[in-house]
Amino acid sequence: MANSLNNISEKSGMSPGALVHVGEIHHTQSRISVLDYSKESLQEISVESINELLLYRDRDSVTWVMIEGLTDISIIESVGKIFDIHPLVLEDILNTHHRPKFEEYDGYLYIVLKALVSTKAKFSVAYEQVSILVLKNFIFTFKEKRDDLFLPVIQRIRSGKSRFRSLGADYLTYTILDLIVDQNFALIDSLAETIDSVEEKLLSNPTLDALNTIKGVKREVAYIRRFISPLRDLLASLLRSESDIIDQKSLIYFKDVFDHVLHISEAMDSYRDIFSGLLDIYVSSVSNKMNEVMKVLTMFASIFIPLTFIAGIYGMNFDYMPELRWKWAYPILWAIFIAIPVILLIYFKKKRWL
Amino acid sequence: MANSLNNISEKSGMSPGALVHVGEIHHTQSRISVLDYSKESLQEISVESINELLLYRDRDSVTWVMIEGLTDISIIESVGKIFDIHPLVLEDILNTHHRPKFEEYDGYLYIVLKALVSTKAKFSVAYEQVSILVLKNFIFTFKEKRDDLFLPVIQRIRSGKSRFRSLGADYLTYTILDLIVDQNFALIDSLAETIDSVEEKLLSNPTLDALNTIKGVKREVAYIRRFISPLRDLLASLLRSESDIIDQKSLIYFKDVFDHVLHISEAMDSYRDIFSGLLDIYVSSVSNKMNEVMKVLTMFASIFIPLTFIAGIYGMNFDYMPELRWKWAYPILWAIFIAIPVILLIYFKKKRWL
Amino acid sequence: MANSLNNISEKSGMSPGALVHVGEIHHTQSRISVLDYSKESLQEISVESINELLLYRDRDSVTWVMIEGLTDISIIESVGKIFDIHPLVLEDILNTHHRPKFEEYDGYLYIVLKALVSTKAKFSVAYEQVSILVLKNFIFTFKEKRDDLFLPVIQRIRSGKSRFRSLGADYLTYTILDLIVDQNFALIDSLAETIDSVEEKLLSNPTLDALNTIKGVKREVAYIRRFISPLRDLLASLLRSESDIIDQKSLIYFKDVFDHVLHISEAMDSYRDIFSGLLDIYVSSVSNKMNEVMKVLTMFASIFIPLTFIAGIYGMNFDYMPELRWKWAYPILWAIFIAIPVILLIYFKKKRWL
Amino acid sequence: MANSLNNISEKSGMSPGALVHVGEIHHTQSRISVLDYSKESLQEISVESINELLLYRDRDSVTWVMIEGLTDISIIESVGKIFDIHPLVLEDILNTHHRPKFEEYDGYLYIVLKALVSTKAKFSVAYEQVSILVLKNFIFTFKEKRDDLFLPVIQRIRSGKSRFRSLGADYLTYTILDLIVDQNFALIDSLAETIDSVEEKLLSNPTLDALNTIKGVKREVAYIRRFISPLRDLLASLLRSESDIIDQKSLIYFKDVFDHVLHISEAMDSYRDIFSGLLDIYVSSVSNKMNEVMKVLTMFASIFIPLTFIAGIYGMNFDYMPELRWKWAYPILWAIFIAIPVILLIYFKKKRWL
Amino acid sequence: MANSLNNISEKSGMSPGALVHVGEIHHTQSRISVLDYSKESLQEISVESINELLLYRDRDSVTWVMIEGLTDISIIESVGKIFDIHPLVLEDILNTHHRPKFEEYDGYLYIVLKALVSTKAKFSVAYEQVSILVLKNFIFTFKEKRDDLFLPVIQRIRSGKSRFRSLGADYLTYTILDLIVDQNFALIDSLAETIDSVEEKLLSNPTLDALNTIKGVKREVAYIRRFISPLRDLLASLLRSESDIIDQKSLIYFKDVFDHVLHISEAMDSYRDIFSGLLDIYVSSVSNKMNEVMKVLTMFASIFIPLTFIAGIYGMNFDYMPELRWKWAYPILWAIFIAIPVILLIYFKKKRWL
Repeated sequence: MANSLNNISEKSGMSPGALVHVGEIHHTQSRISVLDYSKESLQEISVESINELLLYRDRDSVTWVMIEGLTDISIIESVGKIFDIHPLVLEDILNTHHRPKFEEYDGYLYIVLKALVSTKAKFSVAYEQVSILVLKNFIFTFKEKRDDLFLPVIQRIRSGKSRFRSLGADYLTYTILDLIVDQNFALIDSLAETIDSVEEKLLSNPTLDALNTIKGVKREVAYIRRFISPLRDLLASLLRSESDIIDQKSLIYFKDVFDHVLHISEAMDSYRDIFSGLLDIYVSSVSNKMNEVMKVLTMFASIFIPLTFIAGIYGMNFDYMPELRWKWAYPILWAIFIAIPVILLIYFKKKRWL
Repeated sequence: MANSLNNISEKSGMSPGALVHVGEIHHTQSRISVLDYSKESLQEISVESINELLLYRDRDSVTWVMIEGLTDISIIESVGKIFDIHPLVLEDILNTHHRPKFEEYDGYLYIVLKALVSTKAKFSVAYEQVSILVLKNFIFTFKEKRDDLFLPVIQRIRSGKSRFRSLGADYLTYTILDLIVDQNFALIDSLAETIDSVEEKLLSNPTLDALNTIKGVKREVAYIRRFISPLRDLLASLLRSESDIIDQKSLIYFKDVFDHVLHISEAMDSYRDIFSGLLDIYVSSVSNKMNEVMKVLTMFASIFIPLTFIAGIYGMNFDYMPELRWKWAYPILWAIFIAIPVILLIYFKKKRWL
Repeated sequence: MANSLNNISEKSGMSPGALVHVGEIHHTQSRISVLDYSKESLQEISVESINELLLYRDRDSVTWVMIEGLTDISIIESVGKIFDIHPLVLEDILNTHHRPKFEEYDGYLYIVLKALVSTKAKFSVAYEQVSILVLKNFIFTFKEKRDDLFLPVIQRIRSGKSRFRSLGADYLTYTILDLIVDQNFALIDSLAETIDSVEEKLLSNPTLDALNTIKGVKREVAYIRRFISPLRDLLASLLRSESDIIDQKSLIYFKDVFDHVLHISEAMDSYRDIFSGLLDIYVSSVSNKMNEVMKVLTMFASIFIPLTFIAGIYGMNFDYMPELRWKWAYPILWAIFIAIPVILLIYFKKKRWL
Repeated sequence: MANSLNNISEKSGMSPGALVHVGEIHHTQSRISVLDYSKESLQEISVESINELLLYRDRDSVTWVMIEGLTDISIIESVGKIFDIHPLVLEDILNTHHRPKFEEYDGYLYIVLKALVSTKAKFSVAYEQVSILVLKNFIFTFKEKRDDLFLPVIQRIRSGKSRFRSLGADYLTYTILDLIVDQNFALIDSLAETIDSVEEKLLSNPTLDALNTIKGVKREVAYIRRFISPLRDLLASLLRSESDIIDQKSLIYFKDVFDHVLHISEAMDSYRDIFSGLLDIYVSSVSNKMNEVMKVLTMFASIFIPLTFIAGIYGMNFDYMPELRWKWAYPILWAIFIAIPVILLIYFKKKRWL
Repeated sequence: MANSLNNISEKSGMSPGALVHVGEIHHTQSRISVLDYSKESLQEISVESINELLLYRDRDSVTWVMIEGLTDISIIESVGKIFDIHPLVLEDILNTHHRPKFEEYDGYLYIVLKALVSTKAKFSVAYEQVSILVLKNFIFTFKEKRDDLFLPVIQRIRSGKSRFRSLGADYLTYTILDLIVDQNFALIDSLAETIDSVEEKLLSNPTLDALNTIKGVKREVAYIRRFISPLRDLLASLLRSESDIIDQKSLIYFKDVFDHVLHISEAMDSYRDIFSGLLDIYVSSVSNKMNEVMKVLTMFASIFIPLTFIAGIYGMNFDYMPELRWKWAYPILWAIFIAIPVILLIYFKKKRWL
């Protein structure tokens, strides 16, 4: 993952406004799908060039243009030309190393953020940058990859049961943001599980493997936080925005997303603290283990080294060693061999080493 | 406990406003109890459907509707319909993974917070989400479980001694908030006790068990803080609110709750620091113990290993070893066997190892 | 000390305004002393009931009512009735677990703070809550215990030398605050001494005892900070206050107290950092010691274990061991016995273990 | 590098406005190059003295004066005299130990910041201070060294393809800032690589070398942060500036730079946390290794020390030791010699030491 | 140094305004020197009593009264009487344990700060409190000791070359502040050197001595920060001040000092972080060393303890030990004695212990 976040220096020194795709290239052809809906109608089409969208521009229905894959720069260029988008925005759409932000322009809003998708069991995250251009009755979404990220929203539009279709482009924007933000809850669940599984092992058997997991997750959380904390600013500016593209009545929905972001952001902070704590626990547990190992060593050594010495004495070959001739010497020595460990064990017991 | 906080991702991708109960399901049937009181009268009834409440809506008396158990979604739906509550609020009531917040709507206020109840001796906490809807002369409280949480308030209303009944819905709101907030003081007491009991063991005998307790409490405190720190914002917004539902004269009571929240929040912060410190103390204590173990080992080894070597020398079987024939060799050796430990012990004494 | 800070949950669930003494009960009878002074006159009386104070209420002189001991709730109740004090204030006066705060009411100001008194040599602190009610020309002070805390102020009033008596109730308030705040300087001195004495021992001989002291002081500092940091807010609100009870000319005195609080608070912060650092030093010092112990063990073991092995070889009883018959074998072995330690010692010297 | 940041005390006590070059002296002669361009024309000249610039002062074209090398103080002095620059600004230009800042003066803007250039493979950074004076249609840039830092900008002006030449001095300022800020992305890439290479080694083989790298990079990051975090303030003040030198339309470009600074600053913060974490991982990994070493020692010692003792017993020379005469004694002893290690190994296996 | 910062509790309980010198007493007689200068004239006199200053009070020239040594309280008292200074200011001047602050009074400004002078090679700091009273055309400076602190400023006035003498009291104030602030740059240089010298030793040979240095410097930096961080507030209030004593044109100079304070403060923060990091490095380095020691011990023990056991076996005196009679037994044993270490060394090599 670090991979997809590195090499962000490629474009430095270039002209601003020079449209170049910066970031990991997903070798997928760009695809443009359009969803045009109003209370009564729903139209799903797949277009080849942006020019075809001119038809929908002045309609009253909401038109959602989904562009997947950013390799075909000409598409972005035409969007810029036809809908009069500022070159810096186009540049930002193509640069997939962007921090989440909200910008208000004359006639449109620009939102860029990261969709974080928990991929597998072992807390691993896939990042995808999503840019949203919100015009009056017209929404462009730009994604790096072709995937099913927006499927739940599309299905809700298709089903037509809820009041969805009777609401404007601002409600669609909200739904998309809500979807992307709420996917982070899955990350939090995954984090919680990882903590539980790591913690169990930690105290009983602190291995390098557990250390590795802790390290990996800590780093992942550090990256995630970099994409989640700017979301607060993003939504705060969006809520402060006085653009007429967002209806005052819709603000309550965006406030709801804001609450979710706060929740996620606080949860992330506390999980991060917990993970930092796990490292301390790891070290504590390891030194505890070592302490135990040391005790075993010390007890074995303290008991048998003196005994070996005593045995060594009577293994000496001096001509004049009267004890060697005594009849009870050997049994007495055995008594000593038994007495010394007993005394030492009592001593260790007292010291609470046993 | 972590359990009840996980799996918050269940609802992502659903329509906002789709009323689904999110969270641990407490298999209790929903129960609706109503308490209607004024200075002169008191009426306690148990209703089956929200429609029955229409009777009380336009009365001057204060009506408190307690809804326990959130499994019966139709109840929440009828509250929404009859009292004209925003769908997002209804959704929030049903989602029991919510961070505490205060929201002001046209005609009503919405408060959601967590009641933290210290359950057993060993610092363990039960979480229950409480949502409060405050209308003019009408209060709804929504709880996850059927329990005695509100009993003290109910009894004060029943007793009728204090001025309670002559005060409005805002005072009832205050009393409920005060009750929930003040229960955290018990948590603090419990924390203080846990610290005392852990600390005592820590220096004398740093076991894995103590480490486990520290770890557990640290994590619990991390969770608790996530519910207590937003309370500050909650009460700050409530105090700033200009809604006419809250009388200016009642603000002083909410300010008192605010002070308690500050107190608790600061206490939590300082206990958290103390607990973080305990881990350092643990590590220090363990390395101290290990140091002691090492000293014992080193002393035994340093004393007896050289002696064993000397004994070993005279256990050799060389033909030409003149010392073996000397008469005083053996006693002299014994003198050496005594002298070496004495010298080493003096040396260790000097090094303060004894 | 922790004791006096625990058990703050006693009162939760009670009616606000129910006057109950919360906190450690000091079994002292409540005592009321009155000091009434003006530029010309000074009157010291001891009254039995608050009713007697009615005499002084409308005089121009400054009347200082000192109430010591909070067990007699009827006294607080009469103060409330006669001087029209809000029930929540009376409740706060009786609850001795309060965080310092300043509140402005119609006709009076309420200040509550902790007097921290350094008691003995070994950094130990006694806490006493002091509540101050400031009315026009009338001051109530409520203390938990009977002690000499206010003696310096009383003596300055008695002496009558300074301009003290010609100044109003606000100046008296300032003097009391100044006295309580400045007593913290003694704590800081005591902390500095404790640090010096602990530090000296730490590097030379890191014992469990030093660890215990560090732990104790760290915790004490954590508690102290909880009472000192709210003092900033207290004085900041007091300085912002527009009450006519405090003369604009007196503000400069309160600003002086504010400066002292900042000084103390910053000093506390830096001492806390120093104490946290001491724990790191402790751990460092312990591992250093252990390193030394290990070196001694390793050197003894590395030198004598190989020698013992060599002696062991020639202690074997094989029939065919030609060396045993050689004349110079034994002296040569002695040469080896001397050479091996010399070589190893040179090696250890090179490794800087000596 | 620390070198170039030290010795900043040289000038203390001097008169402010006394023009003295403070900082590492790069023994390069100062060089003045001028680039004068408008939509139609482009002129590149190299001038000897500032007086020659008078020609360009009142033209409509944009004139960019690049001064490289700060040893020739007379150049700075003439700039000050001819273009009426405040002495303190001139002093700041010459002092290359300045923290980044933006200042607005009558008729010109002053920007000073550091260009950080990643030099070699092993995360090493070269610092160069760049001062920018922005007048109406006139820009001065002051650099410490002669290098190719500005080459990309110069080439873009030369190429004349983009709209660059038709834009004013504010756009040039933006381009220069953008260039300098974006070079930090290369630093971040380099950091990420260093982390990856260090981390790999860390768990498998925690050497002093890795520790040294971590230490070095941590320190470097600490220095870098000191130059990057003030950039936020710099750009924030620039964006708030109401100077007519910066066109309102250009603000969007500076906002883009601001976003980049935020991105870099956040990335730096998270990399710094990761590096701090690496040290913890290092310690954990080292104690893990030590634990392993201890286990090997303990197992060897625990198994063979008792065996040696038993062998020692039957090496004793007592006259009366019946076992020595038994026929099966020796084989039985061998059985014991095999049984003891087997039992101990099972025991260690159970303790998960193997 | 800690000494000069302790014992700040001496004065608690005294009347505010009671002029008592609080702090370490430098047994130097107070000295009053006066420097009166205007564009044309310069007069240096040494006066005995403050009364003599009345001559200069209403002149247009700038009069700088330097008071060195604070033991003679009568001097401070006369300044107070003659120039109408508030008693609390006089008290603050005499209390040399004051945190830096700026206060604006009717007719004069009061500035108090610490001059930190790096004294010797081994990062040691001398503290001196400097109080400045700025009146219209009149400046008082109060210093604890007689030293050459202000010499550079005095010499600049004497030289009369710069525009200094034509500027007012505010410029003189600036020059003094600038002098005191810029002396901290020397501290930073000294810190950087100390770090370099400690760091070098740290990795190669982590001694208790290095630990002691780190500890000492950390503590010193903690003290320094307590005097430097309030300087920000001091200068911020000064810049906000609307007193007519400070000319608007001079503000740019004070802003320059502010920039220096920010620079120093940030540098101090980052050095403090680096020093905290050094302790971690120390611990890491010590455990690394210990690991090495352990490896040596373990290798020696693991190799020779089994060998000794084997030798012990054939040192037993059983009657029936067939191997003892075999001709090749002894050479075969030697082969084993060589094989075992070789095998173990290969094993250790594989484990990267060598």
